Amino acid sequence: MKTVRVFAPATVSNVNCGFDVLGFAMEGPGDEVEITLTKGKEVRIVSIEPEGVNLTTNARKNTSGVAILSFLDQIGEQQGVDIVLKKNLPLGSGMGSSGASAAAALVAINHAMGNPLTKEQLIPHAMEAERMACGSAHADNVAPSILGGFVLIRSYNPLDVVHIPSKADLWCTLVHPHLELRTEDSRRVLKSEVPLKDTIAQTGNIAALMIGLMMPDYKLISRSLVDVVAEPLRSGFIPGFSVMKSKSSALGALGFGISGSGPSVFALSITKEIAEAVGIAIHKEFSAHDISSDQFISAISGRGARVID
Amino acid sequence: MKTVRVFAPATVSNVNCGFDVLGFAMEGPGDEVEITLTKGKEVRIVSIEPEGVNLTTNARKNTSGVAILSFLDQIGEQQGVDIVLKKNLPLGSGMGSSGASAAAALVAINHAMGNPLTKEQLIPHAMEAERMACGSAHADNVAPSILGGFVLIRSYNPLDVVHIPSKADLWCTLVHPHLELRTEDSRRVLKSEVPLKDTIAQTGNIAALMIGLMMPDYKLISRSLVDVVAEPLRSGFIPGFSVMKSKSSALGALGFGISGSGPSVFALSITKEIAEAVGIAIHKEFSAHDISSDQFISAISGRGARVID
Repeated sequence: MKTVRVFAPATVSNVNCGFDVLGFAMEGPGDEVEITLTKGKEVRIVSIEPEGVNLTTNARKNTSGVAILSFLDQIGEQQGVDIVLKKNLPLGSGMGSSGASAAAALVAINHAMGNPLTKEQLIPHAMEAERMACGSAHADNVAPSILGGFVLIRSYNPLDVVHIPSKADLWCTLVHPHLELRTEDSRRVLKSEVPLKDTIAQTGNIAALMIGLMMPDYKLISRSLVDVVAEPLRSGFIPGFSVMKSKSSALGALGFGISGSGPSVFALSITKEIAEAVGIAIHKEFSAHDISSDQFISAISGRGARVID
Repeated sequence: MKTVRVFAPATVSNVNCGFDVLGFAMEGPGDEVEITLTKGKEVRIVSIEPEGVNLTTNARKNTSGVAILSFLDQIGEQQGVDIVLKKNLPLGSGMGSSGASAAAALVAINHAMGNPLTKEQLIPHAMEAERMACGSAHADNVAPSILGGFVLIRSYNPLDVVHIPSKADLWCTLVHPHLELRTEDSRRVLKSEVPLKDTIAQTGNIAALMIGLMMPDYKLISRSLVDVVAEPLRSGFIPGFSVMKSKSSALGALGFGISGSGPSVFALSITKEIAEAVGIAIHKEFSAHDISSDQFISAISGRGARVID
């Protein structure tokens, strides 16, 4: 019975000007999935760690299970799989938690079956898992979690995922406040129409961000990390948001924003030292609002989900 | 009395997914401006060629004059200037005609005065001329006409113009149909709000276009040359538009669209031969609608406005 263990990193999606089209992978933290091919025909989640995490072991209702079932369906195999999920990422945090479990599960099953699919081909199966978990098959978490680095979703129909050849050395500060914020609520405040002038601003910023990442040009990256679409509508969910933003900037961060649909926030910096100082400042600001938080400092990783056993 | 002659190229702005933020410069055609510093204090347009072109010689109502007056105002000089404008670009064509005259005039006066401003610093003065001519101080024609190559306007407030380090070798087919289409009419059909899903599509495409240009990745460039914002509303002004679009694609063009606010159309191709074949096909299609047209085939030039005497 073949066993494979895979780690898949947390991801930051949206990244200010990249609403629904951009994401990047952290080096860590992340989820781990261990799968064992069995002689049966069933895909089962045999355990979820740590104990007490609020996730079902029904394989059809857990992103790791859904992703593997979709994968097996495509390659036309009825293969028994036992899944052990080590859930390190907090649920509903805006850190790509559901996506990381799916990404890890897919890289694991693909490896165990002899890599019949490319990493890019795994993405639609992870999107199926996202559809089950969040109601929409978004790719801006799962694609960077699988591929690593900065990833652009140029188009959903047809799916066109572009690995961005960034040359920028960046550190990410990711802070998860212990706040409840449901993706649905975060979605609900968005407007179905965007003023033309904001569409223009958003296209100018995302284009400049691509140039900044590829040059690299850190000042241009910093000027581009502006969100006129989601942040004005969502930042109200996050106490102290504007204070954190100005403190991050004062400490030298290139940019600060909401990670995914929140409530986590992130900052990008050119050194680990700045990233750490920013993390402390954000943590303090949440504390001032009586909100505890966890912080993660990590280089932006080009590695993505990877076999660790 | 010092005389300087400058050529400034036609430009294609918008470029499908880059509505109001993107433009590029042709190698030619373009406008020529000859200026002579005089002992007087007046900025005068002494002649406009060819005879009969529908432009005023009032320096405050012609883009070349307005641009020079704005320039002199900034550097604090009361300098007499005689302007001879050789107007090669058709007016109201979507080829950046008003912008090219302003660009040429500015590079000429700057050169004649010993280059007190950088090329980038000339852009706001050309924008003043655009404001007079078109009612809005847009930069997506004047910036590429001055700087050359592909240029991004990341932001208007503050003005942030980014020269895109494109590595793509591209040929442009630019076809000007003898149709009247006023910029105001072209503007009027635009909606003040854009569906969120179209904003997302536009940001995905412009980001991918930047990656495609910088890699270069011609297939990615081609997939990105999509306009979901202006083209659906404006292409109805241009008879045969969708036929030209599919013919261009069938002939191997990477993309086809409206140049600026029209009525000119453009296509991008990887060889001169394809660009020429596309030009013939577009010309034929206009002819089928009883519309005569002029076509221009040119490499995309990194040179921008330049002193020629």
